[in-house]
Amino acid sequence: MAVIRILGIDPGLAVTGYGLVEKDGQKLAYVASGRIRSRLTDSLPIRLSSILEGLAEVIAGYAPGEVAVEEVFVNVNPKSTLLLGQARGAAISAAVLAKLPVAEYTAMQVKQAVVGNGHAKKEQVQEMVKRLLKLPGVPSPDAADALACAICHAHGGLGLGAIVTRGRRVKRGRLS
Amino acid sequence: MAVIRILGIDPGLAVTGYGLVEKDGQKLAYVASGRIRSRLTDSLPIRLSSILEGLAEVIAGYAPGEVAVEEVFVNVNPKSTLLLGQARGAAISAAVLAKLPVAEYTAMQVKQAVVGNGHAKKEQVQEMVKRLLKLPGVPSPDAADALACAICHAHGGLGLGAIVTRGRRVKRGRLS
Repeated sequence: MAVIRILGIDPGLAVTGYGLVEKDGQKLAYVASGRIRSRLTDSLPIRLSSILEGLAEVIAGYAPGEVAVEEVFVNVNPKSTLLLGQARGAAISAAVLAKLPVAEYTAMQVKQAVVGNGHAKKEQVQEMVKRLLKLPGVPSPDAADALACAICHAHGGLGLGAIVTRGRRVKRGRLS
Repeated sequence: MAVIRILGIDPGLAVTGYGLVEKDGQKLAYVASGRIRSRLTDSLPIRLSSILEGLAEVIAGYAPGEVAVEEVFVNVNPKSTLLLGQARGAAISAAVLAKLPVAEYTAMQVKQAVVGNGHAKKEQVQEMVKRLLKLPGVPSPDAADALACAICHAHGGLGLGAIVTRGRRVKRGRLS
């Protein structure tokens, strides 16, 4: 079976998290993760350009074959929602410009796939990402969300059960 | 004085209006306008890709030197706002990818600049765009908004008074 390299993206105007994992059959391996920041003092077009260019660099550097983007949803106020939407639009633009297929997952789907609970807390997601990918430490929340999204995609966006790590199964956020 | 070609964009997920005008000193001339549609049945990434590619074609075809984007704002519901934001993010992405400077104007600024009244109705904007650019007919609302945004930018985003058409001044939406 071919190895698939997946880029997960957690879009945000100030910070866009990214995480790359490799899926080899049922096995998952960590490739890289990080954050793209945009400067609060820059104009919106410049900030969107930072996201576009940052992700273009990540895509050029790691050559993923598929992209998974978290369906961000905040209900703070219309202005923030619009800004977040624009950041997400730029992130998806970076992927489609590279001719990569883009899948979308809601935060609930991502949490369900990674922790086994659609209402899991951020810390639980970070902890499970660390364990599933055998990371030496807990990744930053942005990187963890992006990696979790990539993991969710690796499992076909399905719930748990499909996740097998070193022959162990993940159930309700625990390796059994 | 150098002739400046301005691309105005009225972003939307289903329909993105565009309009190009040329500014030669105080004179304004119509260049082109139209709409980019995305299919409702396509996934969001494909729809954003239609906007990106459509605008990339317009930019490649008409070679504008500056871009003006309307600051869309709808307060219908967070989901629509987020979708609109993503469409706008893709539109701005198309401009920044072409290394074009992007200016943003609120609908009120655009109406103020074109009609002389920040609360002007859509029909008044269409009518004034037709008259200012000497169009044979009233442009479609999307194209009119995009052209109006380009006109607003041509006047430095200022209110009326700056607008001079064939030596006539525009006051409160009327050519005097």
